[in-house]
Amino acid sequence: MAENRKIKLTLSYDGSRYHGWQRQKNGLSIQEVLEDKISLMTRKSVRITGSGRTDAGVHAVGQVCHFSTSARLPAEVFKNGLNSLLPEDILVRRAEEAPENFHARYDAESKVYEYRILNREDPDVFLRAYTWHIARPLDLGAMENCLALLPGRRDFSSFRSAGSSNRNPVRRILRAELLASPNGLVKLVFEADGFLRHMVRNIVGTLVGAGFGKTTEAGFLGILNAMDRQRAGVKAPPEGLFLMSVRYPSPPLPGPRA
Amino acid sequence: MAENRKIKLTLSYDGSRYHGWQRQKNGLSIQEVLEDKISLMTRKSVRITGSGRTDAGVHAVGQVCHFSTSARLPAEVFKNGLNSLLPEDILVRRAEEAPENFHARYDAESKVYEYRILNREDPDVFLRAYTWHIARPLDLGAMENCLALLPGRRDFSSFRSAGSSNRNPVRRILRAELLASPNGLVKLVFEADGFLRHMVRNIVGTLVGAGFGKTTEAGFLGILNAMDRQRAGVKAPPEGLFLMSVRYPSPPLPGPRA
Repeated sequence: MAENRKIKLTLSYDGSRYHGWQRQKNGLSIQEVLEDKISLMTRKSVRITGSGRTDAGVHAVGQVCHFSTSARLPAEVFKNGLNSLLPEDILVRRAEEAPENFHARYDAESKVYEYRILNREDPDVFLRAYTWHIARPLDLGAMENCLALLPGRRDFSSFRSAGSSNRNPVRRILRAELLASPNGLVKLVFEADGFLRHMVRNIVGTLVGAGFGKTTEAGFLGILNAMDRQRAGVKAPPEGLFLMSVRYPSPPLPGPRA
Repeated sequence: MAENRKIKLTLSYDGSRYHGWQRQKNGLSIQEVLEDKISLMTRKSVRITGSGRTDAGVHAVGQVCHFSTSARLPAEVFKNGLNSLLPEDILVRRAEEAPENFHARYDAESKVYEYRILNREDPDVFLRAYTWHIARPLDLGAMENCLALLPGRRDFSSFRSAGSSNRNPVRRILRAELLASPNGLVKLVFEADGFLRHMVRNIVGTLVGAGFGKTTEAGFLGILNAMDRQRAGVKAPPEGLFLMSVRYPSPPLPGPRA
């Protein structure tokens, strides 16, 4: 039977227990758990394609993936069935029919990442797996000034970790903003047409340097223009990072196909 | 050397990994972990006294305990030292000198508990250990009407689980309110001069019955007046419950003792 249907899944997961999105030999991945459960439902081995990888410990509020199947289950049944099979730290938020040519990675128009910092003296036991705790006060104004330099299309080599599979280091950042709450929670939101390996975490590490007064606005611009990873700051830890959403040019076809 | 100092600790903990507050043979407790770390700092075995127990899986934002010691470490050193020794899911928020006659349990004037329900169709992977997920819509107005019946001094036997060590079932509820957020988070806040065993969880289970239309306001009052545990609803699960704070009549003596 031909695999003539494409299903698009929107997922939320707590990355704490996983070795990232991508299936690998040395640890449990989100992809492996999902593929196993879909295979269990369709009684056929399946390969899913994500919008991109997330690293070990990184979370998702709205990761997107697709898979092809010949199973005749309605999309809604995939959602409910998978949610009853999946562990509590992975949730299918939506399952829908997608056009035959839909591709979760190639069709993605932009992605939104959020990095959460808890900037106050005491840590929070309930946020320890979901924030980077920084006890020393950050100069949020200085960080915002640096953030304002990011939007636009440019070579982001300075913020790309080695081992990236993609050769093209040019990306367009559409949005880079800081949202601060009175309780010390600082959210850094980034939207781009794509992200290089560890790009958000490398940017955040450098922004925190600016928040400490170690890097000036001119210094930050210099790093950005240097196109040299050696110049940027440390990489922020994974637990503060959330893939919030993946945007596609147009909504996929609703309802079952004719 | 006499144990001539009393230290009061204000603690926050994620109860997920623990068999509750109280030291026991069959599982790791918050008390055991804390006593071990304090003993490590003072080089002497120590016994701590909490404001009361919390059950397995129940969390605390502001639990209070005290211990006596002859160690000469400043209170601030206890805070920082313990926080460097404790696992990430237990935090000392404050350590302070207390008057010699201070007692964390007997001096407690009131306690505030909060019960968190996530009332929406989809669960939230990040709140799974911190809320009771209820997919079916709750009638919050009906729940509020029942909550309004709670304040006052009365016999709460209907909401006390068997196995309670305290013989007196009379408590005074000072506050019982519901706070709802647009994202489906419903917080039920209870302040009382003391709580019976599983009292908050038994009340919440019964309130949820009212939210489902199973119990009317008159029915809730009937349960309350029956003074009979058989009449109340199910016990709400532990993971939604937080001990928020413990109030004492007057602040303990600040600074080091003369």
